[in-house]
Amino acid sequence: MSGITKTDVLIVGAGPVGLFAVFELGLLDLKCHLIDILDRPGGQCAELYPEKPIYDIPGWPSISAQGLVDKLMEQAAPFKPDFTFNRMVSALERREDGSFRLTTDENEVFEAKVVVIAAGGGSFQPKRPPIPGIEPYEGTSVFYLVRRMEDFRGHDLLIVGGGDSALDWTLNLQPIAKSITLVHRRPEFRAAPDSVNKMYALQETKHLDFQIGQVSGLKGTDGQLSGAIVKGPDGDVEIACTRLLPFFGLTMKLGPIADWGLNLDENLIPVDTEKFETSEPGIFAIGDINTYPGKLKLILSGFHEAALMAQAAKRIVSPGERIVFQYTTSSSSLQKKLGVN
Amino acid sequence: MSGITKTDVLIVGAGPVGLFAVFELGLLDLKCHLIDILDRPGGQCAELYPEKPIYDIPGWPSISAQGLVDKLMEQAAPFKPDFTFNRMVSALERREDGSFRLTTDENEVFEAKVVVIAAGGGSFQPKRPPIPGIEPYEGTSVFYLVRRMEDFRGHDLLIVGGGDSALDWTLNLQPIAKSITLVHRRPEFRAAPDSVNKMYALQETKHLDFQIGQVSGLKGTDGQLSGAIVKGPDGDVEIACTRLLPFFGLTMKLGPIADWGLNLDENLIPVDTEKFETSEPGIFAIGDINTYPGKLKLILSGFHEAALMAQAAKRIVSPGERIVFQYTTSSSSLQKKLGVN
Repeated sequence: MSGITKTDVLIVGAGPVGLFAVFELGLLDLKCHLIDILDRPGGQCAELYPEKPIYDIPGWPSISAQGLVDKLMEQAAPFKPDFTFNRMVSALERREDGSFRLTTDENEVFEAKVVVIAAGGGSFQPKRPPIPGIEPYEGTSVFYLVRRMEDFRGHDLLIVGGGDSALDWTLNLQPIAKSITLVHRRPEFRAAPDSVNKMYALQETKHLDFQIGQVSGLKGTDGQLSGAIVKGPDGDVEIACTRLLPFFGLTMKLGPIADWGLNLDENLIPVDTEKFETSEPGIFAIGDINTYPGKLKLILSGFHEAALMAQAAKRIVSPGERIVFQYTTSSSSLQKKLGVN
Repeated sequence: MSGITKTDVLIVGAGPVGLFAVFELGLLDLKCHLIDILDRPGGQCAELYPEKPIYDIPGWPSISAQGLVDKLMEQAAPFKPDFTFNRMVSALERREDGSFRLTTDENEVFEAKVVVIAAGGGSFQPKRPPIPGIEPYEGTSVFYLVRRMEDFRGHDLLIVGGGDSALDWTLNLQPIAKSITLVHRRPEFRAAPDSVNKMYALQETKHLDFQIGQVSGLKGTDGQLSGAIVKGPDGDVEIACTRLLPFFGLTMKLGPIADWGLNLDENLIPVDTEKFETSEPGIFAIGDINTYPGKLKLILSGFHEAALMAQAAKRIVSPGERIVFQYTTSSSSLQKKLGVN
């Protein structure tokens, strides 16, 4: 990845609160770029419970989590936010002019005048399975997510797990893998029945191998995997494999944010209630990740925090410029920005 | 009016923020009674711009002001709030046990453990017309709103104004008045054309009298009106009347809230940002009427303030009870209260 992406405001996290921040910042003519570890906008709402109804969004007696995300995307659309998905902001440093340089875990570089942390409970990170000696293989032969399918072409793949991720990737990678083995500790799956049926059909035609059991050890040298020991109902078997993909679910971790030099309070970021600014000027924290007296982890509170933060962000990006507080209902200039006038 | 109405929380103002407070308080099992000077819920949204779209309600790319009020009424409905419309809370006093006694301008009495002021810009109050010597007649012969039509039966009525209120009351009171005269300074009206046409039709059949002009003086004794001088295009005429109804629009005033002993800051009520409590424990202020560092007069901020206030109100109404913070998405007990589970 070459070049540096520049923006007014870099928003870490594309959940509902990050999306509404785009709207509030946009009304003040600030341009946003959002980075999220997930592969689509919506954060927890989209990842954990897209079809569940939420009853406490003001003005929505009931709305599905995904429905809310869709509405917030529509509301932010006039301000044309840029998104970078499947990435974690791994490093943040302040530049000499006071602005920020952020680097992702894939070494993309962003520069922004303001950083807004809207990371909810933190980063969704894959759970490490209880396989002894797995660490030396991580990143070379063991992967917890599939960023590019091509990286797995021609490999002997071992996929472990019984949920949708395990089954979906078994089905999707089967056509390009040299061989594919799925291991799950029992014949029942949490994954969608349709996926399970397709998997069994591929097993029937010997396009893949499904084994009941648990991975109890790995074989290989210098991070290069050559096989795995699977403890099954009939004892140990060794399965030849060059890539291992364990799908044991996601967990939420604060992640690299903990290393950015911000004051923290039990994995939450303390902020003031005037600007929702962290201990570092120019870095704001809104939504579930912040804390202040009275804080409730409600989406509706994140919306309020986004609105007040936007005023402070504007003063940083456009110092000296007079901010006129206007209402969308009556201001033709705001309506023009929204494309409705 | 006999008896005292008791409730957990008395909310002054039934605008969008007062309505959402019903929802947040209801989730915590608190019962609300709302009092509003208008004749229906919705506050400024319903009174000043019901059909105008609002673009900054989170999750609603566009919603009419009345549409938002309707949604908030629907969201509050499971908690069966009580409403008293057309009333102003004129007096508030603290009782010996720390709770509150509130009295309306019609002498109804309410008792509540918590008071929430969600009065927006204050009370909508009728504008006094520029008629010399009108004060002595106010409340006896001069009225700025119609609370009970029967009070005007059999009277010689003089109605002044050219908007919807003037025309609507001219048409509604005409059947029960002894005589009715409408005075407006010009033949063009701001009122709905249909109402204007109906008025002209009644004039045609001599069921009412329409005069162009302005009231320049009143005649009567001891607050009892007998006539009014109208300065018209052909000079002064005297119109016999026993009741005068001037409709010169509404203005917003803080009203009696200014006399409740709360700290005020330029007609706004300072609150903390943890509980949104005023200088008087147990009295909260949310929405446009409060002020704190960073305050923006946004409906979405009032929603956040309502949610945090509700937690503090619960601790006052149910001292010692443990409050478990729950999400509507996952809590079956909250869903039961909402009637969706």
